[in-house]
Amino acid sequence: MSPKVLKEPKSQPLPAIHEKPHDPEQAGNPRPAGPCVVVIFGASGDLAKRKLLPSLYNLQVNGLLPDEFAVLGVARSEMSDASFRKKMAEGLKQHGTVKIDPAELKKFESRLFYQQADYTEASTYKTLKSRLADLDEKLKTGGNYLYYLSVPPEVFDDITNALGKNGLVKEENGQWRRVIVEKPFGTDYDSAVELNRKLSAVLTEQQTFRIDHYLGKETVQNLLVFRFGNGIFEPIWNRRYIDHVQITVAESIGVERRGSFYESAGALRDVMQNHMLMLLSLVAMEPPTSLQGESVRREKTKVLEAIKIMSSEDVLRNAVRGQYSSGTVEGDQAVAYRSEEGVDPESPVETFAALKLEIENWRWAGVPFYLRTGKRMANRNTQIMIQFREAPLPLYGGSRMSRIGPNRLLMHIQPCEGITLQVRAKTPGPTLRTSPVGLNFNYSDLGATPSTGYETLLYDCMMNDATLFHRIDTVLNSWQVVQPVLDVWNSIPPREFPNYSSGSWGPQAAEDLIERDGHTWWKPGC
Amino acid sequence: MSPKVLKEPKSQPLPAIHEKPHDPEQAGNPRPAGPCVVVIFGASGDLAKRKLLPSLYNLQVNGLLPDEFAVLGVARSEMSDASFRKKMAEGLKQHGTVKIDPAELKKFESRLFYQQADYTEASTYKTLKSRLADLDEKLKTGGNYLYYLSVPPEVFDDITNALGKNGLVKEENGQWRRVIVEKPFGTDYDSAVELNRKLSAVLTEQQTFRIDHYLGKETVQNLLVFRFGNGIFEPIWNRRYIDHVQITVAESIGVERRGSFYESAGALRDVMQNHMLMLLSLVAMEPPTSLQGESVRREKTKVLEAIKIMSSEDVLRNAVRGQYSSGTVEGDQAVAYRSEEGVDPESPVETFAALKLEIENWRWAGVPFYLRTGKRMANRNTQIMIQFREAPLPLYGGSRMSRIGPNRLLMHIQPCEGITLQVRAKTPGPTLRTSPVGLNFNYSDLGATPSTGYETLLYDCMMNDATLFHRIDTVLNSWQVVQPVLDVWNSIPPREFPNYSSGSWGPQAAEDLIERDGHTWWKPGC
Repeated sequence: MSPKVLKEPKSQPLPAIHEKPHDPEQAGNPRPAGPCVVVIFGASGDLAKRKLLPSLYNLQVNGLLPDEFAVLGVARSEMSDASFRKKMAEGLKQHGTVKIDPAELKKFESRLFYQQADYTEASTYKTLKSRLADLDEKLKTGGNYLYYLSVPPEVFDDITNALGKNGLVKEENGQWRRVIVEKPFGTDYDSAVELNRKLSAVLTEQQTFRIDHYLGKETVQNLLVFRFGNGIFEPIWNRRYIDHVQITVAESIGVERRGSFYESAGALRDVMQNHMLMLLSLVAMEPPTSLQGESVRREKTKVLEAIKIMSSEDVLRNAVRGQYSSGTVEGDQAVAYRSEEGVDPESPVETFAALKLEIENWRWAGVPFYLRTGKRMANRNTQIMIQFREAPLPLYGGSRMSRIGPNRLLMHIQPCEGITLQVRAKTPGPTLRTSPVGLNFNYSDLGATPSTGYETLLYDCMMNDATLFHRIDTVLNSWQVVQPVLDVWNSIPPREFPNYSSGSWGPQAAEDLIERDGHTWWKPGC
Repeated sequence: MSPKVLKEPKSQPLPAIHEKPHDPEQAGNPRPAGPCVVVIFGASGDLAKRKLLPSLYNLQVNGLLPDEFAVLGVARSEMSDASFRKKMAEGLKQHGTVKIDPAELKKFESRLFYQQADYTEASTYKTLKSRLADLDEKLKTGGNYLYYLSVPPEVFDDITNALGKNGLVKEENGQWRRVIVEKPFGTDYDSAVELNRKLSAVLTEQQTFRIDHYLGKETVQNLLVFRFGNGIFEPIWNRRYIDHVQITVAESIGVERRGSFYESAGALRDVMQNHMLMLLSLVAMEPPTSLQGESVRREKTKVLEAIKIMSSEDVLRNAVRGQYSSGTVEGDQAVAYRSEEGVDPESPVETFAALKLEIENWRWAGVPFYLRTGKRMANRNTQIMIQFREAPLPLYGGSRMSRIGPNRLLMHIQPCEGITLQVRAKTPGPTLRTSPVGLNFNYSDLGATPSTGYETLLYDCMMNDATLFHRIDTVLNSWQVVQPVLDVWNSIPPREFPNYSSGSWGPQAAEDLIERDGHTWWKPGC
């Protein structure tokens, strides 16, 4: 066991980022984005059909696309503009979140264009350049391009390099060029540094929009509004009043057809390093000076930087891995991970991970954060549970029966979306007893239009608002947090895999992890 | 205008009260009261039939009455035990809150006894003494008597004196004797002092249980549990986080058949001095050392004592009176107060009162408490609204559109019973806006058995728990708060009565009172 020791773990260079001047008009006022072309690399893939095009359609319907607008799909498949339009219209009907209006659809289709391409061919980018120039001329899109890299990370570099060589990312004459980069951003700390080195040779940090679809979820964004739009929570949001925090991302599905991909990922990389650390940072960050712009990203990064980097001994004590065996999930038979398609029958890859993290700052010192994620869990649920300390005195003098129970704040991310504040109320009757009751709010009560979760992210990128995208130091800090765990798990093969049944809540060791501290996992549910 | 100046307004003698030793077994454990006889003076009246007997029945059904138990009704009407039993059984069927079980009813009826009596006749008490002795012998009630004075305050004195003379209130040989005194306890400060002087010549403070049926309401009792059974509210329950507090007791009915009584009362005496100041004291009190026993009463008294006594100028500025004219209430035509039966056609009596009060202590200095009560209001609703300060910083930097709106805690007392915490959540959509949403809890979700509201009070008195009864200094302190208002209103006749329409929310002056401070009355509703 010799986990790699990170050198200077807290000294990533701060990227050269300057605050945009605040635009008061932007706040609260939905207005259309400015003229632009959205170029989707990987346009024949699932993401474009299921999420990106439906999102752009929703933005159009809501009046948030500019009049001067086009989508240019780029992919390996051979297709004409017409057949791309047809395919996307079908996708829209199948995966769209709103009822399709024929007039809107007609207008939307007329804005879609396609280019067949080999990402490694130089000619691809010559053609791309001339097509973009054509669109600019015909549709007045003004030379503003949003490139969406919906392709494997191996080709990120090829594409951005070629775009750079062809003068397609340089911003001049008031034109903007931005690139949305899909996850994963590296597979460990070093590879993330390397990937960034390559991208930043061509793109500035301000042009690089590292996307995390979790941050597109309304309930995740609401975390910020809930914390900082309400005066009553901040005073109790600290070590003095909060006992501990639990974050659970439970999936009931297994690896489905992603077995061979998952073999090189695992729960720690696939969910913990990105989504869960992001949820943690939203829960734990200091109040930003504004909820828009750079200040949110700065505070998120500060939290991640304050997480105690685990020693190898810490990893053995505070990290638990698991792999599912066969079992029954929500009534259905499920096979073991090692029997899944594309998976090594002796695979050491974890499908479950639990961590106990400590944040070393004045707000959180001594408050444990317990995180767990797994596939083939008893149900699908993403939830944050904040457990407050109990009232300092019992209700009935020194009575033996006087323990009251703590307050809890539950933030439901999915499938239910909402907030529950669990408090104690008097049990009806002539004696003084209490019952736990929930003050409940369902996010659906606000009449949300069903969305794909990508609308806000695409719109924000067009509006040059990077609040919900990952800054490079945030990404590197989060790799730094999980790196010691990756290292230890890599050097010590798991001895007892598989160690939890499909349909359970994970391995016994995860229970032990939290029970050692006198707590239990909060069973998430709606 | 020469309102009476109270001498030494803060120096009532502290009654000689000693803490009962805390009984840990009592907390949380409902157990039957000890042997006793409940003697109801005024047993032929409405209160006995509608509330007291149904409450005792409910206590019996719930196993909280002792086996050795009797009710002795005393009143002027001629009735036998049998006809009293019949009348009470009818009342129970009509006003009871639970389905009547024949076996329970039979048992209950067998415990009812009656004595015809003239309260001023000495012979009444001789007879009473021998009947009680009989019951003690037959039913083993142990000489423990609870006297319920459901009679006009003018005869309180006669009854207690005569009881005293006949050795019926002295506690000896481990027997207990307690007296429940109905409101009103005096009609102003001086008369309350005088009434207390008379009663205390015979009864000790510990034997005197001044009842307020408001304190029997589950939701009122829950105020204490909510505040002190939850660790998350106390930290923000002070001037630093609370902007102001509103308490509304709105009735949609007029004076009904109580016109001639109401002419000598008015809204200030009938509701404000007792019920509303009690709600205020529960909201504003410091944490007691225990939720049972003397410590709650001590803290309530301290709050009332800390209310700033108004000067005449303060009264003119911070007190508003009103009287209803005709109008439409909940769809029905209503006559003006001055046209009600038993009311002087030029009556100066107020049917609406609003006060702005200040509590001069470290917790509340600078936080206004607005109280209003009225008859013939737009609807029937009793509600406490606590408005918190807004988040200290807007969400979007310095944006003009960035005011968020405050959090509010609504405590619904009646007709709906529950709690709403109003917070801000993100409005769904791609821009950052917020909407007010309610985290809701309905008290009925706890599956409360319907109750009359008197069960707890009667049971507590039998158990010698005076927590929910008014201590004499509490009563005198509350009279002290309203005395300057009574004095000024008495010396300056109202000039514009009637000044609000039936079915409105009271006179314009009440709106002005709160709007002067930049606030508006919260419209209560469910």
